[in-house]
Amino acid sequence: MTLFQFLTTLDDLKQVLRTGWLQRGVPPAQAENVAAHSHTTAILAYLLALQAKEAVDLTQVLLMALIHDAPEAVIGDIPLSAQRADPGIREAKEKAEDKAMQQILTYLPAKLKPTVSEAWSAYRKGTSLEARLVEAADRLATALHASQLVKSGFPIETFRPFVDHAEKTVGGLHIPQARDFIRELRESFPS
Amino acid sequence: MTLFQFLTTLDDLKQVLRTGWLQRGVPPAQAENVAAHSHTTAILAYLLALQAKEAVDLTQVLLMALIHDAPEAVIGDIPLSAQRADPGIREAKEKAEDKAMQQILTYLPAKLKPTVSEAWSAYRKGTSLEARLVEAADRLATALHASQLVKSGFPIETFRPFVDHAEKTVGGLHIPQARDFIRELRESFPS
Amino acid sequence: MTLFQFLTTLDDLKQVLRTGWLQRGVPPAQAENVAAHSHTTAILAYLLALQAKEAVDLTQVLLMALIHDAPEAVIGDIPLSAQRADPGIREAKEKAEDKAMQQILTYLPAKLKPTVSEAWSAYRKGTSLEARLVEAADRLATALHASQLVKSGFPIETFRPFVDHAEKTVGGLHIPQARDFIRELRESFPS
Amino acid sequence: MTLFQFLTTLDDLKQVLRTGWLQRGVPPAQAENVAAHSHTTAILAYLLALQAKEAVDLTQVLLMALIHDAPEAVIGDIPLSAQRADPGIREAKEKAEDKAMQQILTYLPAKLKPTVSEAWSAYRKGTSLEARLVEAADRLATALHASQLVKSGFPIETFRPFVDHAEKTVGGLHIPQARDFIRELRESFPS
Amino acid sequence: MTLFQFLTTLDDLKQVLRTGWLQRGVPPAQAENVAAHSHTTAILAYLLALQAKEAVDLTQVLLMALIHDAPEAVIGDIPLSAQRADPGIREAKEKAEDKAMQQILTYLPAKLKPTVSEAWSAYRKGTSLEARLVEAADRLATALHASQLVKSGFPIETFRPFVDHAEKTVGGLHIPQARDFIRELRESFPS
Amino acid sequence: MTLFQFLTTLDDLKQVLRTGWLQRGVPPAQAENVAAHSHTTAILAYLLALQAKEAVDLTQVLLMALIHDAPEAVIGDIPLSAQRADPGIREAKEKAEDKAMQQILTYLPAKLKPTVSEAWSAYRKGTSLEARLVEAADRLATALHASQLVKSGFPIETFRPFVDHAEKTVGGLHIPQARDFIRELRESFPS
Repeated sequence: MTLFQFLTTLDDLKQVLRTGWLQRGVPPAQAENVAAHSHTTAILAYLLALQAKEAVDLTQVLLMALIHDAPEAVIGDIPLSAQRADPGIREAKEKAEDKAMQQILTYLPAKLKPTVSEAWSAYRKGTSLEARLVEAADRLATALHASQLVKSGFPIETFRPFVDHAEKTVGGLHIPQARDFIRELRESFPS
Repeated sequence: MTLFQFLTTLDDLKQVLRTGWLQRGVPPAQAENVAAHSHTTAILAYLLALQAKEAVDLTQVLLMALIHDAPEAVIGDIPLSAQRADPGIREAKEKAEDKAMQQILTYLPAKLKPTVSEAWSAYRKGTSLEARLVEAADRLATALHASQLVKSGFPIETFRPFVDHAEKTVGGLHIPQARDFIRELRESFPS
Repeated sequence: MTLFQFLTTLDDLKQVLRTGWLQRGVPPAQAENVAAHSHTTAILAYLLALQAKEAVDLTQVLLMALIHDAPEAVIGDIPLSAQRADPGIREAKEKAEDKAMQQILTYLPAKLKPTVSEAWSAYRKGTSLEARLVEAADRLATALHASQLVKSGFPIETFRPFVDHAEKTVGGLHIPQARDFIRELRESFPS
Repeated sequence: MTLFQFLTTLDDLKQVLRTGWLQRGVPPAQAENVAAHSHTTAILAYLLALQAKEAVDLTQVLLMALIHDAPEAVIGDIPLSAQRADPGIREAKEKAEDKAMQQILTYLPAKLKPTVSEAWSAYRKGTSLEARLVEAADRLATALHASQLVKSGFPIETFRPFVDHAEKTVGGLHIPQARDFIRELRESFPS
Repeated sequence: MTLFQFLTTLDDLKQVLRTGWLQRGVPPAQAENVAAHSHTTAILAYLLALQAKEAVDLTQVLLMALIHDAPEAVIGDIPLSAQRADPGIREAKEKAEDKAMQQILTYLPAKLKPTVSEAWSAYRKGTSLEARLVEAADRLATALHASQLVKSGFPIETFRPFVDHAEKTVGGLHIPQARDFIRELRESFPS
Repeated sequence: MTLFQFLTTLDDLKQVLRTGWLQRGVPPAQAENVAAHSHTTAILAYLLALQAKEAVDLTQVLLMALIHDAPEAVIGDIPLSAQRADPGIREAKEKAEDKAMQQILTYLPAKLKPTVSEAWSAYRKGTSLEARLVEAADRLATALHASQLVKSGFPIETFRPFVDHAEKTVGGLHIPQARDFIRELRESFPS
């Protein structure tokens, strides 16, 4: 139960390549890892939060974003295609992630655990403004990286769906301050 | 519904890296892919089958081994660690694999489909001699590759569990002709 | 003289990258290895064999395909460009491959050796229906992978010759059941 | 001057490999990138900050950590060996980083710029508790990753200096809550 | 002070990837290293020197080209973008390179040191015909490799500036025998 | 018949990985390429030549070393294991290399061709002091890189044979000035 053990586990996120890119032909040596993705997500979530009309806990937004994919250090990044093949996977994955996260949280010293644990619970619940900002940032960061891949030569048609997906999600989450971001995203995928 | 479509899908197995290696620190550029693993499995299953005391359908053994991980072309290789985190994943994964395989089988021309479909069903059932030979070969091929990784410098302790796992599985499957193979495997992991 | 030694040698096929791709600019980390190529070849050869009008030994077709490049585990994949630079290379390469294969076959236990040895001899002779099916599948599997590379962004013009080469070879081998496959191959290389 | 432009620039941190690893023989395909490093730094800085005896701005700690290497998106990661070869490099590098950061900050919408700009200035000044926590976390995250490299087979002697370096820095910064972390770090480099 | 120590240091140039490519999206596994670049530079400098109207020391041209980037074995390849961010970097870099080179030269046995040392000094001074030929070859070799990258699918617009840069430099150095080379370079970047 | 065409061909040496390393488990992303190897060979050959007791054409030594593997740009690096499997390969390879080199030489402008052509012929003949220095440097450069691989963690036993091979070759070539180099090489492979 030490900070060292907790961070050693999270360090493994650097080895977890995002399967969404691998399955679309991005070679492993070029594929974004989960730690790097979480870095972008945190910065973006914070900057969206700064623009919120309502009160928002900025520290929690940042913490949530940094750990939103933490369980993947243990169970890997189960491809969305698996979840599409059978809806049972989605549910089982969520359960496995929750268990993995509980295991990871046990590494934390007792006095540090509650704050991290609460941030995780709120993220999973998904209803608070903080959680919605992180979910929006997660999708937008993914679409942004898709646009970077396109810029470096990967085929547009393969990666455009990430923008549609992000736009739809963000719309449902009511994050109007992302509107300009999405417009520029769109423009970076010329048709 | 053409041979071309079927094989195009299976060709994607070359991009699916086995997560068992990735999670133990083998860099993506060195990690075995599922197509290459299936190649070893097929040769080994065939050579074990040749030594069977009972009658065995050699062609089916070979076909089974070649397609035993085919659904991973669609859903990827879900890590064992995810299955350990929650038993529900194991079940959901099997369902998703079956659905993915049904989808892949629809690509086959009508007259080719039954044989491949039967081989898959028998493999999933797991009780026939053919299915047991392929399952044994699957584990032994994995442990063999672990021993190759150790030979090229990866840490012994990290990869020894693959031998224990293979030995235990093969024992339960009653494949006595694998005894020598397992002994040599063990010797390649000096303690 | 054990199964373990034989398979350890064949496992090295996973490290042999096909020089045909490397010489056309496919980065090593993305280049198909010989084990994975043999996997595709085996499935394709089998499915072509299932459609044969004449009697065909399916087991031998599968075994042949699985080992058709086995000597490359010892001598590597000598580029076609070397063979083109001097016809003497082609002949010397065949001799070296035969010697390497004899060496590999000595690893097999005595009772397993004849079947594998016969399959290799028949493949080298190249006249049986089984051998011709494997040769056709070898070329078609290569052209299929070329079409996958094109789909993921490699230049069409560089890889189209693989289709012409496959078509010509398959025509000479009299494998009419490959006609549809070739047509679809062609269509995947839009001009 | 949009969020999109700002984040597109920071996304390039995923392509900047840390030269400290490259120069010690870690192959590029395995070398940590600056975005992933900043992710660890942010989590660690936050958890150290939570344990501070004095009042501390947690949000600023997180933001600082996330952007502490941001200029490297523009100028790359100049190796420490270059700075050692001539002290003039260190000074010039700092000036170049400051200029690069000013350029990056211009991409931010006017209302978002001050907070990010202040966090950067405070980090550069280096005297506030927030800045010292981030600097400590930066060194400790680096030493932690060194210990992960050692665990996966890289030579201990090559990477031990990172622990000495971290310990010395953290001592000078007066971050007593890092004491246990450093002890465990040390133990992960057996002599 | 031995040949072995000197060459061991220069061997590290094989691990130094040129940052000009990395910063333009060439994945590390495909990026040219400094040793390979120096190989092209040496051959090109020699062939340009052979065509010189004036007397030229061919051996020195070759030696100069082979060591023109030697200090990067110690200090890495500081990106041009860093030099652009602040002119101070350029100056500091040159000083650091000179110091690193002095250190590398101390490894040479006493009787070998003067020749190599003189070649380096003349290259740094930059005024002799030999030095100008090497500088021209350095830029042309870089632009040539840019054209190879374009041929293998990297975006033309990203790499065209290397030709403009080479043309301008070579013009200023008065190397008329490079005129045809530059014309063909241009043609390999169709607009 | 232009310098540009000649150098474009030689640039491909950067993509030719040395099979001696690949076959001993060095991952492609870390394997030395032929251009980088030729760089070391040239510097080493030059420094050995500087110490020769007899008169020696330094320019030719350098040129020879730079092009000694040039045909591999066309025909690749045929593994030594293939040459061992059948002596016919060795002879055929030499013929193919000579043909490839003739083809490459045709790219050179008429006035540049003789010097390069003569250097190649003398290298192939192998009897002149210049040719012997380059052959010695070729082997020593290879053994030196083997020692670098060992230093970065690859297994000593696998790479020690390169030192024995180099020592034997250099002895037969009567290059006494390499004695110290070989001694230090040996010491870098502790037993």
